[in-house]
Amino acid sequence: MSAPPGPLSLVPFVSVDDMMQLVSETGVERFLVDLAGYIEDDFRRWPAFQKTPRVAAHAVDGSIELMPTSDGELYAFKYVNGHPKNAREGRQTVCAFGVLADVATGYPVLFTEMTILTALRTAATSAMAAIYLAPPRARTMAIIGNGAQCEFQALAFKALVGIDAVRLYDIDPAASRKAARNLVGAGLAVTVCKSAEEAVLGAEIITTSTADRARARVLTGNMIGAGVHINAIGGDCPGKTELAPEILARAQVFVEYPEQTRVEGEIQQMPSDFPVTELWRVIAGLAPGRSDARAITLFDSVGFAIEDFAALRYVRDRLGGRVEKLDLVADPDDPRDLYGMLLRAGVQAAA
Amino acid sequence: MSAPPGPLSLVPFVSVDDMMQLVSETGVERFLVDLAGYIEDDFRRWPAFQKTPRVAAHAVDGSIELMPTSDGELYAFKYVNGHPKNAREGRQTVCAFGVLADVATGYPVLFTEMTILTALRTAATSAMAAIYLAPPRARTMAIIGNGAQCEFQALAFKALVGIDAVRLYDIDPAASRKAARNLVGAGLAVTVCKSAEEAVLGAEIITTSTADRARARVLTGNMIGAGVHINAIGGDCPGKTELAPEILARAQVFVEYPEQTRVEGEIQQMPSDFPVTELWRVIAGLAPGRSDARAITLFDSVGFAIEDFAALRYVRDRLGGRVEKLDLVADPDDPRDLYGMLLRAGVQAAA
Repeated sequence: MSAPPGPLSLVPFVSVDDMMQLVSETGVERFLVDLAGYIEDDFRRWPAFQKTPRVAAHAVDGSIELMPTSDGELYAFKYVNGHPKNAREGRQTVCAFGVLADVATGYPVLFTEMTILTALRTAATSAMAAIYLAPPRARTMAIIGNGAQCEFQALAFKALVGIDAVRLYDIDPAASRKAARNLVGAGLAVTVCKSAEEAVLGAEIITTSTADRARARVLTGNMIGAGVHINAIGGDCPGKTELAPEILARAQVFVEYPEQTRVEGEIQQMPSDFPVTELWRVIAGLAPGRSDARAITLFDSVGFAIEDFAALRYVRDRLGGRVEKLDLVADPDDPRDLYGMLLRAGVQAAA
Repeated sequence: MSAPPGPLSLVPFVSVDDMMQLVSETGVERFLVDLAGYIEDDFRRWPAFQKTPRVAAHAVDGSIELMPTSDGELYAFKYVNGHPKNAREGRQTVCAFGVLADVATGYPVLFTEMTILTALRTAATSAMAAIYLAPPRARTMAIIGNGAQCEFQALAFKALVGIDAVRLYDIDPAASRKAARNLVGAGLAVTVCKSAEEAVLGAEIITTSTADRARARVLTGNMIGAGVHINAIGGDCPGKTELAPEILARAQVFVEYPEQTRVEGEIQQMPSDFPVTELWRVIAGLAPGRSDARAITLFDSVGFAIEDFAALRYVRDRLGGRVEKLDLVADPDDPRDLYGMLLRAGVQAAA
């Protein structure tokens, strides 16, 4: 009914299938390592970003959030939901999509699925943080909560930190069996455990990635010995935590963006002046990381927009020209003549 | 490389061409009238919405904004930029897209272009407000600033308010000629004027829709007589206004969402306690509109998320099943088995 869309109107679209193909071509571990490099680069230049806590709409059963940020040249946002009940109805707990845009023009330059990409960027961020915070030569990681994040965490810590054994526990044994089955042949010794207490035995790194929206006690004080690094990623909204507060009191606590973490993270249980270190300052060499071999370090991670920004940059750079382009931006010959474009497409004032 | 996407993963996508087709089938005036009805319905139930000022990233040359809202059943957001310099480079000053989602699951249910839709919803909102605020039996509207919004405003005020004459002025005469040409046959007497002063002569309604990002004086006090309704839509971000402050002091001022308008609207020029009336209260019968025939009424409109929410609802209801669906949401058979979906698509841990 009208002329084909002009080049300004077309936005590359990465579907779920495109993303799977991109990960497949790259290999999961290399994807995680390369992506962690992009995230590390963006953490190192943290002050260059416009930052805001994510904008959440909370409902009874979950939340929908927008996570925008910009470095002045590129702008990114992610749409992401968190609905723990979804899994019981055959849906993803978390699904996401996002956009990268050109700040100079405001035009979108990439639209992509981010359900898979979020799982990858979360794992890459966790492992990147552990490079700075975990005890040296850590070999064993416990993963408590074996849902959609589990295998990505295992592979990221293998590729980036050198983990060679994972100990799995989930309140639903089928989830642990699923993860163990998927990790066959991945080069990791996998042990399925009957309790969280059993899972943490001998682990230098403990990842908690449970989904229940509650003040949970996935880890209690007596489970955590000296020299451990805790990567807590499941507590990520108000009212949803995983750790007993006495662990926080004993640990060096590192966070992404305090304004967001004090509302959504484990430290929502602590006073508003509870001392934390911003992870980017450790990466930029402005603050110390782990103080000594016996310290308990905690990365209280809730996910921040700059991680998605880095992931969108990485996908854009990896993509080439292969994907479908969407006819998303109206592009009249004369930009003031939007109505004329409709007229030329056959629109009449009155039907 | 993998099984076709399941039904949960597919999101209807309305391209620019689809939107033009929808408007064409419906007719612009009927589209505007029906859309205004949806907007009016949502203004009437204003307290039912979660509201927040839009989240803006401001750059030297423009801004990028996210505008979310929810009524507890549906969630909507719009991405929109505002880059006045774009028009000089062959791009739209404003381009936009948006999403409607199901609050119960967090899953998106509609993804659509909104450059055209925003032009339509802005005009529909302006005319809907004028039904409550303009003097009765208004027949003539001045439109100062004849860019992309101009013809939509003219047609909306014709269809909803009964305007039969428009008087156009733009600092660029070519913009006025473009609008006059596009409005041939639309049932409006169109006069192209040489100045803003000439344009407002005899007009009961004055729409200002200029694009310059500056403290402009498109209207000064001596241009505004008794009994006029001003529809000011061009001043919509910090530092961008169109009216001399003495007009605000003389007018009854109506706004969408004061928390946003006091930062972005004409009233950013006034003290923070400058009295305004929320338009929704007039529509809901909770506050008076125009006080008398000689009053000057001003709709200080910056655009609010609930208008986009209503527009997305309207498009969803009009659409039927005709459009393309995007493979946007990863949909593994077992929602916890996101990594297994990658494995089955041929992904290897190491490349």
